[in-house]
Amino acid sequence: MKERIEVCLSGAGGQGLILAGIILAEAAGIYEGKEVVQTQSYGPEARGGASRSEVVISEGFIDYPKVTKSDILLVLTQDACDKYISKLSQDGILIADSSTVKDVPALSAKTYRAPISKIAQEKLGNKLVINTISLGIIAGLTHLVSLESLRQAVLNRIRPRVREINEKALLLGYEIAQKMKLEKN
Amino acid sequence: MKERIEVCLSGAGGQGLILAGIILAEAAGIYEGKEVVQTQSYGPEARGGASRSEVVISEGFIDYPKVTKSDILLVLTQDACDKYISKLSQDGILIADSSTVKDVPALSAKTYRAPISKIAQEKLGNKLVINTISLGIIAGLTHLVSLESLRQAVLNRIRPRVREINEKALLLGYEIAQKMKLEKN
Repeated sequence: MKERIEVCLSGAGGQGLILAGIILAEAAGIYEGKEVVQTQSYGPEARGGASRSEVVISEGFIDYPKVTKSDILLVLTQDACDKYISKLSQDGILIADSSTVKDVPALSAKTYRAPISKIAQEKLGNKLVINTISLGIIAGLTHLVSLESLRQAVLNRIRPRVREINEKALLLGYEIAQKMKLEKN
Repeated sequence: MKERIEVCLSGAGGQGLILAGIILAEAAGIYEGKEVVQTQSYGPEARGGASRSEVVISEGFIDYPKVTKSDILLVLTQDACDKYISKLSQDGILIADSSTVKDVPALSAKTYRAPISKIAQEKLGNKLVINTISLGIIAGLTHLVSLESLRQAVLNRIRPRVREINEKALLLGYEIAQKMKLEKN
């Protein structure tokens, strides 16, 4: 792993991206002992429905806590894709929800598309779990954190009534990642 | 208001300080149109049960998003007080839960003590709302954000089943602040 990995989770308000950032941060920081800073910003860009959550994970001390160039960029809306694509690192990984992001610039070989919200609706009957599916995809594609650490953080952060569906969503995302990797080869 | 206000909410894991940080950030950033960056860090200091959430609120662009010296420091445990007191700005405001923080250094005239967790238990029968009471206290002491913006953010972030008790907690905190101000005079 690179010394410092910058992750940007972006989409619309209500898609649970802040919670996803916290879960990813806790998985890496509490369950895997990494240094982690998790940030959300509110300002002109956050109004009008956009939402963005950033996680910086490092083996050592984190001096500057904001994402400058994303190593991993998740985009759940076209708006988010258009807005944050320029911040993707040159060999960064782009993960796009192809149900909603129709126009994905083919910037690098590391662009992955999956109809995340369509799959959420069809397989789990609930679009509210696209955040957790996305975390499963990130774990499956990048091994940035283990699936088990993510599961621990989900169990810790998600309220009991929806834990079961979120555990399923996490595994579903991990499987989607395996399929996307096969399709690349 | 100073151009840039740095808030540090500190205590133990499970006290809802991350959620409190997000609510404060949304109140200022979404409902009052300020620039806001909200951060939590995980690392050696976060393990062993400590928890800390930071919010930087500014009228203008935020260049460095981490808290360097707190203008407002909330401490809900003795550990948090001992650890973060050195980061309090010279004329910063310290708010301590006197039910749990017995040894508060009398650093400045702006030290406020209230038995927050005791009041939470006695008045609302629930210690889980100390985070929301604390937000009410911050609003009442500092007018950093309006009570109405905080209420909007609470309604947006807190799940329906516990909204009522959290609205009460917010007002209770605001009242506690008024009493503390009177006692100072």
